[in-house]
Amino acid sequence: MSAMRAVQVVGYHENLRMAEVPVPEPAEPLDVVVRIGGAGVCRTDLHILEGQWAEKSGVELPYTIGHENAGWVHAVGSAVTGVAEGDKVILHPLVTCGLCRACRSGDDVHCENSRFPGIDSDGGYADYIRTTARSVVKLDESLEPADVAAYADAGLTAYHAAAKAARRLTPRDRCAVIGSGGLGHIGVQVLKALSPAELIVVDRDPGAVDLATSIGADHGVVADGDHVEKVLDLTRGGAEVVVDFVGEGGTTAEGLRMLRQAGDYHVVGYGENIDVPTIDVISAEINIIGDLVGSYNDLCDLMALAARGAVTLHTEKYALDDFQSAIEALDAGRVRGRAILTP
Amino acid sequence: MSAMRAVQVVGYHENLRMAEVPVPEPAEPLDVVVRIGGAGVCRTDLHILEGQWAEKSGVELPYTIGHENAGWVHAVGSAVTGVAEGDKVILHPLVTCGLCRACRSGDDVHCENSRFPGIDSDGGYADYIRTTARSVVKLDESLEPADVAAYADAGLTAYHAAAKAARRLTPRDRCAVIGSGGLGHIGVQVLKALSPAELIVVDRDPGAVDLATSIGADHGVVADGDHVEKVLDLTRGGAEVVVDFVGEGGTTAEGLRMLRQAGDYHVVGYGENIDVPTIDVISAEINIIGDLVGSYNDLCDLMALAARGAVTLHTEKYALDDFQSAIEALDAGRVRGRAILTP
Amino acid sequence: MSAMRAVQVVGYHENLRMAEVPVPEPAEPLDVVVRIGGAGVCRTDLHILEGQWAEKSGVELPYTIGHENAGWVHAVGSAVTGVAEGDKVILHPLVTCGLCRACRSGDDVHCENSRFPGIDSDGGYADYIRTTARSVVKLDESLEPADVAAYADAGLTAYHAAAKAARRLTPRDRCAVIGSGGLGHIGVQVLKALSPAELIVVDRDPGAVDLATSIGADHGVVADGDHVEKVLDLTRGGAEVVVDFVGEGGTTAEGLRMLRQAGDYHVVGYGENIDVPTIDVISAEINIIGDLVGSYNDLCDLMALAARGAVTLHTEKYALDDFQSAIEALDAGRVRGRAILTP
Amino acid sequence: MSAMRAVQVVGYHENLRMAEVPVPEPAEPLDVVVRIGGAGVCRTDLHILEGQWAEKSGVELPYTIGHENAGWVHAVGSAVTGVAEGDKVILHPLVTCGLCRACRSGDDVHCENSRFPGIDSDGGYADYIRTTARSVVKLDESLEPADVAAYADAGLTAYHAAAKAARRLTPRDRCAVIGSGGLGHIGVQVLKALSPAELIVVDRDPGAVDLATSIGADHGVVADGDHVEKVLDLTRGGAEVVVDFVGEGGTTAEGLRMLRQAGDYHVVGYGENIDVPTIDVISAEINIIGDLVGSYNDLCDLMALAARGAVTLHTEKYALDDFQSAIEALDAGRVRGRAILTP
Repeated sequence: MSAMRAVQVVGYHENLRMAEVPVPEPAEPLDVVVRIGGAGVCRTDLHILEGQWAEKSGVELPYTIGHENAGWVHAVGSAVTGVAEGDKVILHPLVTCGLCRACRSGDDVHCENSRFPGIDSDGGYADYIRTTARSVVKLDESLEPADVAAYADAGLTAYHAAAKAARRLTPRDRCAVIGSGGLGHIGVQVLKALSPAELIVVDRDPGAVDLATSIGADHGVVADGDHVEKVLDLTRGGAEVVVDFVGEGGTTAEGLRMLRQAGDYHVVGYGENIDVPTIDVISAEINIIGDLVGSYNDLCDLMALAARGAVTLHTEKYALDDFQSAIEALDAGRVRGRAILTP
Repeated sequence: MSAMRAVQVVGYHENLRMAEVPVPEPAEPLDVVVRIGGAGVCRTDLHILEGQWAEKSGVELPYTIGHENAGWVHAVGSAVTGVAEGDKVILHPLVTCGLCRACRSGDDVHCENSRFPGIDSDGGYADYIRTTARSVVKLDESLEPADVAAYADAGLTAYHAAAKAARRLTPRDRCAVIGSGGLGHIGVQVLKALSPAELIVVDRDPGAVDLATSIGADHGVVADGDHVEKVLDLTRGGAEVVVDFVGEGGTTAEGLRMLRQAGDYHVVGYGENIDVPTIDVISAEINIIGDLVGSYNDLCDLMALAARGAVTLHTEKYALDDFQSAIEALDAGRVRGRAILTP
Repeated sequence: MSAMRAVQVVGYHENLRMAEVPVPEPAEPLDVVVRIGGAGVCRTDLHILEGQWAEKSGVELPYTIGHENAGWVHAVGSAVTGVAEGDKVILHPLVTCGLCRACRSGDDVHCENSRFPGIDSDGGYADYIRTTARSVVKLDESLEPADVAAYADAGLTAYHAAAKAARRLTPRDRCAVIGSGGLGHIGVQVLKALSPAELIVVDRDPGAVDLATSIGADHGVVADGDHVEKVLDLTRGGAEVVVDFVGEGGTTAEGLRMLRQAGDYHVVGYGENIDVPTIDVISAEINIIGDLVGSYNDLCDLMALAARGAVTLHTEKYALDDFQSAIEALDAGRVRGRAILTP
Repeated sequence: MSAMRAVQVVGYHENLRMAEVPVPEPAEPLDVVVRIGGAGVCRTDLHILEGQWAEKSGVELPYTIGHENAGWVHAVGSAVTGVAEGDKVILHPLVTCGLCRACRSGDDVHCENSRFPGIDSDGGYADYIRTTARSVVKLDESLEPADVAAYADAGLTAYHAAAKAARRLTPRDRCAVIGSGGLGHIGVQVLKALSPAELIVVDRDPGAVDLATSIGADHGVVADGDHVEKVLDLTRGGAEVVVDFVGEGGTTAEGLRMLRQAGDYHVVGYGENIDVPTIDVISAEINIIGDLVGSYNDLCDLMALAARGAVTLHTEKYALDDFQSAIEALDAGRVRGRAILTP
């Protein structure tokens, strides 16, 4: 049994620490061991270190962090058929059972028996990770693991919300997107690819607004105090759909005000409470739609868009050994796009 | 021009008053004048008298109240083709334009140019009312105006919510209904007719719970403090759909707690605020769905159910001249079912 | 390794033969061995003996026939978690992979790697059968294997078609069902449970028409030459949906004639060709919808309906040793409902 | 009452003839008289002259031909509110009632009381045409009547089929389009705007294939005998959706062969019969979907795409007085794109 590097949580409110641990091996028939090509560094990782997930995940320390992973298949269990050693893959963030009602309905995110590597079991800030055949998506030959790893969770969440929102959008509809950061700028590209609606993107940061219009938004609005009125003007009375990638700092009330009658307000970002009179919900007959991370099928769909260049992602790469620099850069707001650890 | 009786709002915080006014005549080509056979007395009528709608409706006093109407066609404008003098009809509560995007999409409730007789123009506490060909639904010969009038608004709202809720319900799903009063007991019957889901009805009043189980609910739960836990037990972890016909006194928080992952919470009754953390909305990926009154098509569908006896309604009839008794009985909570004014 | 009885195909155009074979054991981690409580005798079994499936299935003789199976879990593989020895189960007719796109979308019937026990591998005319955890549905305690076995294929096909048809049916719609035999009479019950539409059932056999009206059809029409006109009269110009459980003897042309504009014609039974001018398809804007057997989720839904008595099935039981009598009775048209082999 | 030019059908198998007729005036409150800016010359016009529509339409000769019209509002009836004199408009090809169930459901194409100007009443090969407020769509200021007239019927049919097809298409799906002529090349652009699927276009004419790939098709296939196999290769086993804009010369059988399991075959073009074994329909569980012209809402959506340049149309303009040249050019196959008569 050979050894490998793994960056571990050894205590809350402590720095991560590099450890030497055994390379995982397939233990169950459907297990797949993947050699990591890229592991996304996510804000959730900071929250884990702050202990915010300690109780919820129940994970025992030390364990290996990292939930946005892509790489190459290294070894497979006896029952694995769809992938083989050497295949380039991206990993769905959950390991799911395949047998519960949710899994059997294509809705594996609500699997009744899932685990979440990097959160409640060993993740991908390492040389290798163990997952299962249910969680690996083969990559098109044009895509590289380090370039796509951040799609595994952040991108997948944006895709899922945008794809759900797009279902009702027609050429005459308008969709307002709140937030054009890490998730939002992927959401804009997905909405552009999947829907014919007019896109209006709102962000506090003028640079983010410029990015949004450069990747397909029809209108950009800087959130400077008049932005709700500007959206109401641009939409002549309200957007059919609002997708809120922020969910704090007052965006939930603003997002609801941007809606037209019978509109959908999508909650993706989170932080504050939604506080809305029932009379407003029924008199305008609006819907408040929750959006979690996407399913395995969503990830396959997103990879199809990525393979043809319909969605792209800005990344900054760090060597695995420089994990501390990546964490600090993220914490300091110095990362442009997504930080990725590479072998 | 002959004269007729009309019960009018003459001032807020004053009693309604019987007046003699001209019988309306068709003024536009699509106008339809209906001789009233039944006019529902609704809690909204009490709110109008309290002045709650004064600003919103902008109606000029005096005007004739009454927004749940059914009767017989008395006269038609030059362009009316689908109904003729003598036809039994129920009236959709809105008069809509037929030309805006909402009307052209079968969603006439969101008509951009609608008016609401009984709220913002003359209603049906009278011998006759003027509406248009777009708002009259012919009744099956087995139905009588005085028996069905209350479907025009209360019943139609319950139908609309139940029909929207039913779309996703399958034989393995559970639907929890909060409130089995005027709207709720119609909603239960509609859910039974339109969906194969298991129905659980929650109400504070044991009599209302008994009524619900007698008309098709699979389980009744008296809201006595343990009711959320009882629903979670009966649904083994939460209902796929909750339809809340109450919307005050804490039911919004309770209703959200009754939901399973990926569930839908329908807001029909109103009063309090929904106050929910965004993290709860996204982590369970739930939806909060607003429900307003139903469309013209919904009313046709509801009348089809009524004609075959799949939905029934308890009514107490009062002569039009006894309008004050009906209003007082409703205000005092002495009406069982719905109070109806008849000629 | 103990032995068991198994009724086998030993040659085409020869009688089935009883053999003694080893009791199957779990070979893969997800395997489940089921002790048979009931095995449905189906017309397809007669077609197998006539050699109609020989080339298509590629099965090697001898093998054990029988594709409608229910019983008790006898042994499970190492990775099976949802069921345990002694559980009552019904078997989905396919064994599916769980990993292809179709399986991952809840559409396991179109699995790219499925096998079909009783058709292309050993089936259930035996004491035991081997399937997998993906194909067993636990039964409600009120249901017995021998009573429900015929739901596994015939019932599941009827459920699937009826559930697809029901999705668009509203209280004002009419659904015409052609054929109220083995599949059709289940379809009628499912349509009644899942949709509020008016049901019109057409069959050549007046007894079948009587059965249909006794289990919920609103109108019965004996197919005597005037039946298309009768359906057009009853539907005032055509049904929104036609579900054809026959598919031969001219029913496809008749079914298409029974449709209203924008209607759906469902093909369930098969035999003849559909031959229709494209101008008729586009000018009435109709849809021709194929229906195969239902998914695992459909089977769970059907079992939920059966558990509450919303769907029932007439069966005639034969001891496994009397398999030849059952086959002959079916071939001679002497079976009322479905013939079931029991231990 | 002033006079105007009108090109009329005076007899079948005779040339059209220019006549002088009165300028129409609004007769009903919702009538709208439009000054023609462009009238499309369509193959259906040739069929009318051949008498193919004589019985079906029941039109009395002489009458004015032309069913693809756009122009400027000239006069409006007393109840018209949405448009005013001088507005640029395109005309939905049908005049519908607004009151039947289909109209009230947003499905005005199946209106029970419609008429079809240019087919069964006076059309747009003239200086003016009378329609109603229900059939006029205001144009964006960037669009000119003569440029968009051909969207009124040909374009609208292509839009409707493509929009229906697009509803189920995801980034991993493939859509095969048969025919990239007048309708097909609009369909390709609409599919590109509304869906993320890979598009494969098949046509006998290499020039049409080149056009298709230049406007967004991902793959072009010349129909030279091997085209079904080429589509099966490109789609790795079949397209999820096939849209057939031809419907004759064997394309229906070819289109069905191009389908993957559970695929949709859309019939838009017509001519031959679909002749398919029911066993093939059910064993692959495919759907055959009819597509007629689009609704009023579809036309609004198409105009929104046209206004932003997402769909463009090649036209050749002829003066109204040169109608005979336009008809002859079309009949001889010399028109590239669509021929349009202009004032």
